[in-house]
Amino acid sequence: MKKQFVAYIRNLQNEITSALEEIDGKAKFVEDKWTRKEGGGGRTRVIENGNVFEKGGVNISEVHGKLPESMQAYFGVKDADFFACGLSLVLHPTNPMVPTVHANWRYFEMYNAEGTIVDSWFGGGQDLTPYYLFEEDAIHFHTVCKTACDKHDSSFYKAYKKRCDEYFYNTHRNEARGVGGLFFDYLKQTETMTMEDWYNFVTEVGNSFLESYLPIVKKRKDLSFLKANRDWQEIRRGRYVEFNLVHDKGTLFGLKTNGRIESILMSLPPHVQWRYDHHPEEGSEEEKLVKILQQPKDWISY
Amino acid sequence: MKKQFVAYIRNLQNEITSALEEIDGKAKFVEDKWTRKEGGGGRTRVIENGNVFEKGGVNISEVHGKLPESMQAYFGVKDADFFACGLSLVLHPTNPMVPTVHANWRYFEMYNAEGTIVDSWFGGGQDLTPYYLFEEDAIHFHTVCKTACDKHDSSFYKAYKKRCDEYFYNTHRNEARGVGGLFFDYLKQTETMTMEDWYNFVTEVGNSFLESYLPIVKKRKDLSFLKANRDWQEIRRGRYVEFNLVHDKGTLFGLKTNGRIESILMSLPPHVQWRYDHHPEEGSEEEKLVKILQQPKDWISY
Repeated sequence: MKKQFVAYIRNLQNEITSALEEIDGKAKFVEDKWTRKEGGGGRTRVIENGNVFEKGGVNISEVHGKLPESMQAYFGVKDADFFACGLSLVLHPTNPMVPTVHANWRYFEMYNAEGTIVDSWFGGGQDLTPYYLFEEDAIHFHTVCKTACDKHDSSFYKAYKKRCDEYFYNTHRNEARGVGGLFFDYLKQTETMTMEDWYNFVTEVGNSFLESYLPIVKKRKDLSFLKANRDWQEIRRGRYVEFNLVHDKGTLFGLKTNGRIESILMSLPPHVQWRYDHHPEEGSEEEKLVKILQQPKDWISY
Repeated sequence: MKKQFVAYIRNLQNEITSALEEIDGKAKFVEDKWTRKEGGGGRTRVIENGNVFEKGGVNISEVHGKLPESMQAYFGVKDADFFACGLSLVLHPTNPMVPTVHANWRYFEMYNAEGTIVDSWFGGGQDLTPYYLFEEDAIHFHTVCKTACDKHDSSFYKAYKKRCDEYFYNTHRNEARGVGGLFFDYLKQTETMTMEDWYNFVTEVGNSFLESYLPIVKKRKDLSFLKANRDWQEIRRGRYVEFNLVHDKGTLFGLKTNGRIESILMSLPPHVQWRYDHHPEEGSEEEKLVKILQQPKDWISY
């Protein structure tokens, strides 16, 4: 399974970066290969100052070794060896009418002293963060998510959509980071799902990513915008930073377990603003977005 | 002591905001009074888009009530009542040649069920975060800190300078946030120091703030700068955000204990950049700063 999923994410990284370069039409991804002292490494690909993408990264990593002490308590184990691999992406478009997107699909194995797998699971998901709300974009994104889920189990979309709304939530602001998508974790063997079944599910979701996002980019990338729209985008990006640095478990793990800082923090937006006590005007498009984020809603029926 | 220190910080807030408005020459502090549902409140004063200060806040708060559950474990107590008051300030100048400054002076009391004080302490300090390093500015700042300390105990400067270097450190970047200053906490009654003595010490430090910072502002505020200098400032401000959101105990406490979000996050800079794997040019002024931050140094002898 390890080999199978590693091969999958390597290939998916190529597919996604090619498609993004094509739609960007100007900037190319720059690749950094890195190795981890304790075992493994990764391939970070970053795009900056494109026609469409102001900053973004599509990274894969495959790390292994002794489970860091700081993660032992989290997983409730002692002195275990682990293997983890995954693809992580965040794209920050220049045009405030194009939403930011984040996705991550990962696989984890834990071993006993003899090197036998004692536990393994998949995790991941994808979620959309608009600055201006085009309801049809949210509906499109969720429809693609649901279609991928439904091929495997009719209960998945509802469950993972809900977990996404719960996870990507800035509790200190009482608002969601964006309009959601899917979030799942600890997908382990059950009576009805083998690890092979989960592999098929997670790769189905991964394969649906470009279809979930690119049509939205195409539709919005050439819309005109004003400096005020851009200011609003930069202010909202501040909320993105707050979520990633204060609440996101993946980011905090990385920062506290000697991960490759630049690969972890490539998720942070290029230009960001914080204004004191900023509130959008009543009745404005900006206020409409905030109201939706304060009360995560169902974009499609299920 | 409670009354005495509250009166002190109210007065100090007035003094500091007046002096800052005078040197800014354009923007005025806007005041927000707020109350805390569970008891107490504060007076937040924010300045934005001035001649000198792009964004800054000088806030006081006096809060009391049941110690929030999330703080009980931290202080190793159960079901206690508390009182806390303090002045907190952060100033982000527009000109990258003028350093950012942060200061905080606070007093804490804990009570048993009968309302008797069972513990009390002072805490605080002040630290400087330059974007371009003028060694004489760091020396001036530390000299004022040391002079204030030395009036009370010749060991204080050394001890609190060291704690400042240790506290304001971005472990995930292996670099200090700035060139330090003073940091102290849990200043409690000892054989040689009464609470009144600590009050005299902390207020001495508080009273020295304007003298530590304003001469630097005056000297640097009219220096010319290029867009590249400003970009560098915004990139470094990213590190400031990382420290405050990932490591700063005060900020995280506030965010997790239902503090007034806008007063807590007024510390975040107005315009910030994150670039992937950015490194200053070899031999540049920017690199010189980074090297100093990687190895906190003694600015004055002690």
